[in-house]
Amino acid sequence: MATGLPEPEPLRALIDALRSLPGVGVRTARRMAYHLLQHDPEGARHLADTLQAAVGELRHCERCNSFSQTPLCTTCQDPARDPAVLCVVETPADQNMIESSHGYKGLYYVLMGRLAPLEGVGPDQVRFAQLLQRASDGQVKEVILATNFTAEGETTAYYLADMLRNQGLTVTRLARGVPSGSELEYVDAGTIAWALAERR
Amino acid sequence: MATGLPEPEPLRALIDALRSLPGVGVRTARRMAYHLLQHDPEGARHLADTLQAAVGELRHCERCNSFSQTPLCTTCQDPARDPAVLCVVETPADQNMIESSHGYKGLYYVLMGRLAPLEGVGPDQVRFAQLLQRASDGQVKEVILATNFTAEGETTAYYLADMLRNQGLTVTRLARGVPSGSELEYVDAGTIAWALAERR
Repeated sequence: MATGLPEPEPLRALIDALRSLPGVGVRTARRMAYHLLQHDPEGARHLADTLQAAVGELRHCERCNSFSQTPLCTTCQDPARDPAVLCVVETPADQNMIESSHGYKGLYYVLMGRLAPLEGVGPDQVRFAQLLQRASDGQVKEVILATNFTAEGETTAYYLADMLRNQGLTVTRLARGVPSGSELEYVDAGTIAWALAERR
Repeated sequence: MATGLPEPEPLRALIDALRSLPGVGVRTARRMAYHLLQHDPEGARHLADTLQAAVGELRHCERCNSFSQTPLCTTCQDPARDPAVLCVVETPADQNMIESSHGYKGLYYVLMGRLAPLEGVGPDQVRFAQLLQRASDGQVKEVILATNFTAEGETTAYYLADMLRNQGLTVTRLARGVPSGSELEYVDAGTIAWALAERR
């Protein structure tokens, strides 16, 4: 970091704290701090309040592991959901994307991570035992693996498929193929290869 | 925004509040919220505290307009600074960059903005009268215009030069030319043209 002006302490502390946001370096943090102080002090106060509230009030749903204000989240409590299908995702953001497709009516399990041996994240860190217990409730018949199609997501799916099939569960994976609305000319070769291999 | 999951209220509020940060859309805000809640609740609390402290404790320096905890900022109070030279910048971030060059020992005036007629920002909004008063303290001999080399920054500099020269002050502008360490081949033609015209 280029050290220039001796910044007033509260400003320096704020810039430093903003760097705890993912993808925010010192330059962006400084820009954010100046913006809030100069143009949006009300927004800054509001952000402070919502941060406190979120950290204080949110917990993990006891069944699906996603964020919730109550012991069981609204999705897990919803009687209209099909308890026989369980969709496993890496993060609440992924869960949110699947919900926004309006194509799924079962329940979820959020791993809050994925296997990443290179980063020291193994089956214990992602609490696979908890998922195994959840999937063995006698109601779940099918587990849909919706981890990312990255190296780590695929490894996680592979590992989970093995583990869950041993429990006599049906295990499926999100279809891989050409994205909806895309032109073949601009799709990468790996995707085309998969779309060919999994044609139907 | 893709509406998916009914997010718990504190989470929804936090995502919304994070969008008041410059350059942060709903996707980034969601990623930030999840990150803080899942991996760094302590960082979130700390960020909330520093936001409150910064908004509560920082004010504008009465002389230079930059952020300060005291009526006069540490730079304006520094007796080692040359009171005969005043450098005009758009923002504290610009001031910080000039300081980090270690090439300037005079004082500053921070406009906290620039002329932007298309956005309705005129001389009154940027409080040019206040600058004029500051520059007419009898000590200032030279004003260095260090506004950005953008259309708006140039307009501001042009306008200020006119105004300040009428007060009998020496007005200079940061040199324009080829960036230090750059290869001519990769410098844009406009910069080369300026560097030629202002060769010395």
